[in-house]
Amino acid sequence: MKQSQMFIPTMKETPADAESASHRLLLRGGFIRQVAAGVYSYLPLGYKIIKKIEVIIREEMDRIGSQELLLPAMQPAELWHETGRWDVYGPELMRLKDRHGRFFALGATGEEVITSLVRDYLNSYKKLPMSLYQIQTKYRDEKRPRFGLLRGREFIMKDAYTFHDSAESLDQSYWEMYHAYCRIFERCGLKFRAVLADSGAIGGKDTHEFQALAEIGEDIIAYSDSSDYAANLEMAAVLDTDITDKGESLPLEKTAGKAIASGAVSISAYWFKTREETVVVFVKSSDEINDVKVKNVLGTDLIESINPESGNPLHPEKGVRVLADNGLKHIAQASFYSEPEAATYNFIDPKRDLPVERYEDLRFIKEGDPSPDGKGRIKFAHGIEIGQVFKLGTKYSEAMNATYLDAEGKARPLIMGCYGIGVSRTLSAICEQYHDEDGMIWPKSLAPFTIHLITVNPKNKDQYDLSEKLYMQFTDQGYDVLWDDRKERPGVKFADSELIGCPVQVIVGKKAADQIVELASRKEKERIEISIKELPLSIVQLLDQAD
Amino acid sequence: MKQSQMFIPTMKETPADAESASHRLLLRGGFIRQVAAGVYSYLPLGYKIIKKIEVIIREEMDRIGSQELLLPAMQPAELWHETGRWDVYGPELMRLKDRHGRFFALGATGEEVITSLVRDYLNSYKKLPMSLYQIQTKYRDEKRPRFGLLRGREFIMKDAYTFHDSAESLDQSYWEMYHAYCRIFERCGLKFRAVLADSGAIGGKDTHEFQALAEIGEDIIAYSDSSDYAANLEMAAVLDTDITDKGESLPLEKTAGKAIASGAVSISAYWFKTREETVVVFVKSSDEINDVKVKNVLGTDLIESINPESGNPLHPEKGVRVLADNGLKHIAQASFYSEPEAATYNFIDPKRDLPVERYEDLRFIKEGDPSPDGKGRIKFAHGIEIGQVFKLGTKYSEAMNATYLDAEGKARPLIMGCYGIGVSRTLSAICEQYHDEDGMIWPKSLAPFTIHLITVNPKNKDQYDLSEKLYMQFTDQGYDVLWDDRKERPGVKFADSELIGCPVQVIVGKKAADQIVELASRKEKERIEISIKELPLSIVQLLDQAD
Repeated sequence: MKQSQMFIPTMKETPADAESASHRLLLRGGFIRQVAAGVYSYLPLGYKIIKKIEVIIREEMDRIGSQELLLPAMQPAELWHETGRWDVYGPELMRLKDRHGRFFALGATGEEVITSLVRDYLNSYKKLPMSLYQIQTKYRDEKRPRFGLLRGREFIMKDAYTFHDSAESLDQSYWEMYHAYCRIFERCGLKFRAVLADSGAIGGKDTHEFQALAEIGEDIIAYSDSSDYAANLEMAAVLDTDITDKGESLPLEKTAGKAIASGAVSISAYWFKTREETVVVFVKSSDEINDVKVKNVLGTDLIESINPESGNPLHPEKGVRVLADNGLKHIAQASFYSEPEAATYNFIDPKRDLPVERYEDLRFIKEGDPSPDGKGRIKFAHGIEIGQVFKLGTKYSEAMNATYLDAEGKARPLIMGCYGIGVSRTLSAICEQYHDEDGMIWPKSLAPFTIHLITVNPKNKDQYDLSEKLYMQFTDQGYDVLWDDRKERPGVKFADSELIGCPVQVIVGKKAADQIVELASRKEKERIEISIKELPLSIVQLLDQAD
Repeated sequence: MKQSQMFIPTMKETPADAESASHRLLLRGGFIRQVAAGVYSYLPLGYKIIKKIEVIIREEMDRIGSQELLLPAMQPAELWHETGRWDVYGPELMRLKDRHGRFFALGATGEEVITSLVRDYLNSYKKLPMSLYQIQTKYRDEKRPRFGLLRGREFIMKDAYTFHDSAESLDQSYWEMYHAYCRIFERCGLKFRAVLADSGAIGGKDTHEFQALAEIGEDIIAYSDSSDYAANLEMAAVLDTDITDKGESLPLEKTAGKAIASGAVSISAYWFKTREETVVVFVKSSDEINDVKVKNVLGTDLIESINPESGNPLHPEKGVRVLADNGLKHIAQASFYSEPEAATYNFIDPKRDLPVERYEDLRFIKEGDPSPDGKGRIKFAHGIEIGQVFKLGTKYSEAMNATYLDAEGKARPLIMGCYGIGVSRTLSAICEQYHDEDGMIWPKSLAPFTIHLITVNPKNKDQYDLSEKLYMQFTDQGYDVLWDDRKERPGVKFADSELIGCPVQVIVGKKAADQIVELASRKEKERIEISIKELPLSIVQLLDQAD
C-alpha cells in the first residue's frame, strides 16, 4: 500500500499523559487515538494488527471445536437480576435506559446472556459438552482508565463458555482451552506464563491466568528459576520446610515497652472479622500476611481487617480463633509486642505459649524461597493479565435455572467453564515486549506490513522507478508492503519507519541508478548496501532471524 | 462440522410474533435469537453468514483503496454538541452517563467521531483524498423494532467516510463507492436497485439508496419496465409531457356546493407553511402531492401542512405564493371546490384564472407513467434499504472546524462523503429473497455450509462408515460440510435440513451398503439415487446450477 494514501498520523512529540511504552508508542506510531478517557479509535495500522490477533484466536478456537457466535452488548437488566449481579457489580457496570424506561447493562462479561441463550436448548446430556465463543467489544467503567489499551473502558475481548454434564468433561475442555491459549500467545510472539490464580470462590475452583511478562504489569508473578512453576503472588504456596534445629526453649518473659530480646524472632498478630467470627493470625514480622490464603483456609468469601482496641492474642477472648503461619512451627524463641499492653513478650515458644488452633501456609512467598514444586528458587516478575481460564461450576446455571436431563431423566444444573482473552490488551502487551526507544519492532506474525519500502526522494525518477519495480516484485512474492512514496524529508520518513516498526526496511536512495539499495532489519538497524539481485534471498534470511 | 457438536437450536413451531419470512426463518433455522426487542444474538450458523458478508465487503472496500479502522461505540456528548445533533437527534440516540457523570452517545452513526479524528491530521490538500471505513455495531433506539434484524436497535453496519478538496474528487469517490456497493450486493446474490433518493438537504446533494427488492420492504421504488432507471417513489421525476389538445377555454363559473361540471378535471389545493412564508400548491385531484418535491422547489429544509380556516387559493392573500403541478399546464377546464366558501368553481383555465407563480413537478409518479429517462413505463416495487451513498459536502467539517490548507495556503473545510451498508439488514434481505415455505435456500456465496451430509440412521454401521468416508472426501475437496450425525428421527433431520438451507443435500440411507446415496439440491428438492462414484461430478453440476 502506498503510504501517501494511508491514514497514519504519527507524532513527533511524546504525548504528555502516556504512562507506558505501549501507550506512548501506539499513539506516536499512529496505531490508535484517544476519543475519551479509556476509549480509543483503532486506526488502520492498529486495526490491521488487531485483526491478525483475531485470526490467530479464531484458528485456535476452531481447532478445539469451539463455535463462534456474537451476543449483543445491550443486555437486559432482568438477566443481571436473575444472578444478582445487577446490584453486586457496582459502578464498573455501565447501564442505560431505553426510550421506554427499560434498563440495560452494556456487556462487561457474557455469563448471563449466554446462560439464558443455552438454557432452553441444552436440555439433555446428549447435547453436551458444548463450547461457544465470541470476539466482542466489552464495556467496563474503570475508575482510573490508564496505560492506553491496557485498562480501557471500551475494549475488545474474546470470551468463551463451555457447558458440561460432569466435572471430568469440564476438566477436559478446561485443559483444551488452556493449551489453545498457550498456542495463541505463542503465535503472537509473547513471553508469558500461565499462572495459578485465585478463583475468589469458596472451595477454590481451578483457574489460571495468562500473564505477559512486562515491567509495567500490575500483577506480580512468582515463578521458579528452574522449572515451569508459576503462580500469582497471592496464590504461590510456601513450602512447610522442616528446620530441625529451632533452638532452645526458654522461660517466657514479659517486659514493659518495646524490648525484643537478642536472638529472638519477632512475630506479629493480625486480626480479622468474617461474617461469623473473629480470627487472629500470627506471622513472622519479616513475612507478609496473605489475606487470600487466610480467606481460603477459613473457607469464607469475605474477611475484613480489624484493629482491636483491646485483647491480647496470647490470651484471646473465648470464641476468637487463632491461626499461625507454618513458619512459626520452627521457632522456639519468638518475641511479640502487645500494643494494648505496651509490653513485649520474649522467649515465646509458639507450641507452648500460643493458643494456635492450626498452623497453615498464610504468608506471601518471597524471592529466594524454594519453589513449591521442589525445583529451584522463586523469582518475581511483573505481568499483564492477557487471559484467564476458569471453572465456573454451577454458579450461573443454578441462579438462572439452566438445567439438563441426565441419563436417568433427572434435571441437573449445567456445569460451566468460562474463558477470556483481552484482545486489545494483548496488543498492548506485545508493544511492551517489542519496542525500542525509537518505536515498535513488531513480531513478524503480527506486523501490519512485512516490508517497509522507503523512497528517499520520490521526485528522482531513478529512485521512483526502482521503488515501483520493487513494490510490484515484493507484492508478487506475497509480502505485505508499505511503500513510503511521500514527498517528505528523509529524516521524517526514517523516523516514521522506526515508529511503525515493520520487520524489514528497504531504502531506495542515491544509488538507485546502479540498482543498489539499502537493507536493514528494524531490530538491528544496521543498513547494508545490496544489489537488488541479492535482495530476495537477503530478505528471506532477515525474516528468518526476526522474531 | 459434526451437527451433534453444533449449537443449532431449530424450532418446529413458527414463532407467534415473527412478522416477516426472514424473521421467522432466521429464528426457526437457529440462525439468531432475540435477547430483547430489536436486540439479537447471532448464533454460530447466522454469524458464519454475517462473516461471509463482511469478507465480501472488506474485499471490495480494499479494492477501491478504502482503509479499515474501528471507532468506539462510546462517543462523548461534546462531539455531538459541536454539530448540534445531541439535541436534534431525538430519542433514537441512545445515551448514557459514566461514573463521573459525563454523557456519551452510543454510536448511531460516525460522522462526529471520524471528523474529530481526521481534523488534526488531514490538514493539507496533499493528504487528500482519504477513504476510511469500519464494520461496527451501531445503536438506534427505534420506537417500534420489527421484522427481526430488519429494524433492530443494536445492529451491524459498514460505514465509510471520504475526505476531499474538490467536488470532482468527491464525485470520483462517490461513484467508486457506488460501483463497489453494486459488486458487494451482486456477490451476495441480491436482487436490488440503486435508486435516486432524497438527500433531505437544501440544494439537493447527490445520494443513492440501494434497495433490495422484497414484498416486506417499507420503501416503494419506481422503476422503468424497459431501462435501468430507478428512484425512490418520492424522488422519481414526472415528465412534463406536452398534450397539445387541452380542450376549449370556457367562462369561469361559480356554483354553491359541490358541483363539478361534466368533462372538467378536478383539482385540489394544498397549503403549507415554511419558516418564512405560506404556500399553496395546486395538483390534479387524481394525482398525489409530493411534499419532498415541494420542499426542494422552495429550497427550504422544513415545510408543514396547514389547513387554513379561510382563504381562497384562487384569490390568495398578499404574500401567499401559489405553485401548481405541471399537469395543470395541460388543462383548460378545471374544477375546484372551495371549502371555506362551500362553492365550486368550474371551467377554470389555470393559465387564465389561477395566480400561479411557477409550474413545477410537484406530484408523485404513478405506475404507468412514462419513465423519466424516456424509456418505457414506470412500475412500482417494494424495497428494503440495504445501503446508501451520500455526498455530505461541508456540513460536518464546517460545524467541527475540520479544515485543510489548499495549494494557496488558504484554510478550507474538508469536503466529505459518507456511505453505509446495513450488514445485519443485508442478511435479512437475502432471507426475504432466498427461501421457500420450509426454510432457507442460501445462495452459494453465503451458505453457512455448502453440503449438508445427512446420515439417516447413524447407529447403522454401513451408513455411519460411508458417511464418515464422504465427510472426509468432501472436506478434502474443499467443501464446507455439515454432517448430521445426530441420533434423531429422520423426519426431524430432514425438516432441520430444509430450515438450515445448505445448497446441496447428500442423504446416506438404506442403500449405503451398496455405495448408493441420495442427492438433492435444496432448491429443487427432487432426490436422485446415485452411486458415490458419480457423486463428485454431480455435486459440481448441482452447484453450477445453484444461485
